[in-house]
Amino acid sequence: MSAPDPDRALPDPSKLSLNTATVKTQWTLAQAIEGCARQGIRGIAPWRDKLAEMGLKQAVMAIKANGLTVTGLCRGGFFTARNWLDDNRRAIEEAHALGAQCLVLVVGGLPEGSKDLIRARERVKESISMILPEARKAGVPLAIEPLHPMQAAERACINTLEQALDVCDVLGEGIGVAVDVYHVWWDPKLQQQIERAGKKRILAYHICDWLVPTRDLLNDRGMMGDGVIDLPRIRGWVEGSGYSGFHEAEIFSELNWWQRDPDEVLATLKQRHRDCT
Amino acid sequence: MSAPDPDRALPDPSKLSLNTATVKTQWTLAQAIEGCARQGIRGIAPWRDKLAEMGLKQAVMAIKANGLTVTGLCRGGFFTARNWLDDNRRAIEEAHALGAQCLVLVVGGLPEGSKDLIRARERVKESISMILPEARKAGVPLAIEPLHPMQAAERACINTLEQALDVCDVLGEGIGVAVDVYHVWWDPKLQQQIERAGKKRILAYHICDWLVPTRDLLNDRGMMGDGVIDLPRIRGWVEGSGYSGFHEAEIFSELNWWQRDPDEVLATLKQRHRDCT
Repeated sequence: MSAPDPDRALPDPSKLSLNTATVKTQWTLAQAIEGCARQGIRGIAPWRDKLAEMGLKQAVMAIKANGLTVTGLCRGGFFTARNWLDDNRRAIEEAHALGAQCLVLVVGGLPEGSKDLIRARERVKESISMILPEARKAGVPLAIEPLHPMQAAERACINTLEQALDVCDVLGEGIGVAVDVYHVWWDPKLQQQIERAGKKRILAYHICDWLVPTRDLLNDRGMMGDGVIDLPRIRGWVEGSGYSGFHEAEIFSELNWWQRDPDEVLATLKQRHRDCT
Repeated sequence: MSAPDPDRALPDPSKLSLNTATVKTQWTLAQAIEGCARQGIRGIAPWRDKLAEMGLKQAVMAIKANGLTVTGLCRGGFFTARNWLDDNRRAIEEAHALGAQCLVLVVGGLPEGSKDLIRARERVKESISMILPEARKAGVPLAIEPLHPMQAAERACINTLEQALDVCDVLGEGIGVAVDVYHVWWDPKLQQQIERAGKKRILAYHICDWLVPTRDLLNDRGMMGDGVIDLPRIRGWVEGSGYSGFHEAEIFSELNWWQRDPDEVLATLKQRHRDCT
């Protein structure tokens, strides 16, 4: 990891949030909640498979008891799946019950056998417009997460912040974006589009790092400070645009962090959040 | 591979060109030239390492003797390397000697130890402006190749067609882009930016396919028809914009095509060019 820049404006340590995917192979959701409480991490973003395993009511109680903020629920979306409508309705209900600051949408890629990216993108827009009224009614903001272009075929056909914001502009209120540095750090229009998004549209800010080399297209993200993303600069843009929410650490790391003691992972998150972001 | 659409406008088979990287583990440049001649492929795009190995004069003679068109020389660029200026000058001379339709620029990523993508991009623009007068004088068009965002750190910090065209607009005459479907297929602004580029700026068109799943960030490209890129649609946009040049097949494929008999590879290129692009 590179030396921190001593002159940068420091991040507020109370704004660190744990996306539980970061310790998904080691901990249940109950353990992750306890871990955050034990280590003084004030935000948490659960995934729905772990939420189902724990039970929604239990999770709501444990999160409340520990005074954690739910910075997002992962995830709705995958609008190309067969049961997408029911599944997204359930996700909205769960996000409401958790008091989540947003429901993160990973919108899905190309339908099986299709090469029609334009149609897939239209379908995503139509599908979001169908669930948006329910999300508004439930008070659950929907956060489109543009994913890295290398995941366009399989996971999400919304691949830049500009594209996501164009969709938001069409759809109106109650929808915004999750800005994950891993997916957008390379974008020559990043600063411009973060400014465009502003406080109104940025619903979540996710951090990790881009490793050189990257050994896998999905599960080789780096801990903050171990890669090449200029995290202080991007945080400067995001906070400069008016966003004052949490910094959610989300690290899919098959070869490294998923192999480690989860308390060590959380301690490292805290140190790197302070020193490298 | 999926069934070809019988209604599409067929590609002109005489426009297929072989980027020699497609058979780089199997053949020398001399063998690739003979292979193209033997199989009736009319265009070739050599790489400079193989060119040096064969000798520039020998290569010029062999290419001329076989009546091949040099659709591009790969590559100049890497402006973050120490010897970039001399190296790019030599590349321009070689491209001139070969009568290449363009010198492809892979511009380089982040300098060692740097996270400053904005500065890297500025440096690329400055560097190109320094070699452009020599390229114009030599009659060698420079083709900026935007690379896929997953290669931003290591190989090229120009990552979209829009960004490349913005650089061209600043630099003026004698410069354009190489449109490689592998790098740009995902881009929501692809059609718009191809139209913007038009005949004036599109200097080369490269084809291959995006495999699902993709197992490596660099060397797991697919043969046309084996992946999810809508090749007929993109060719329609490119030719609709006025481009009437070659379709250069460039397939980095460590696990598949680099393992095969190169004559079989060329035969497959011809068949797939006809049936899937």
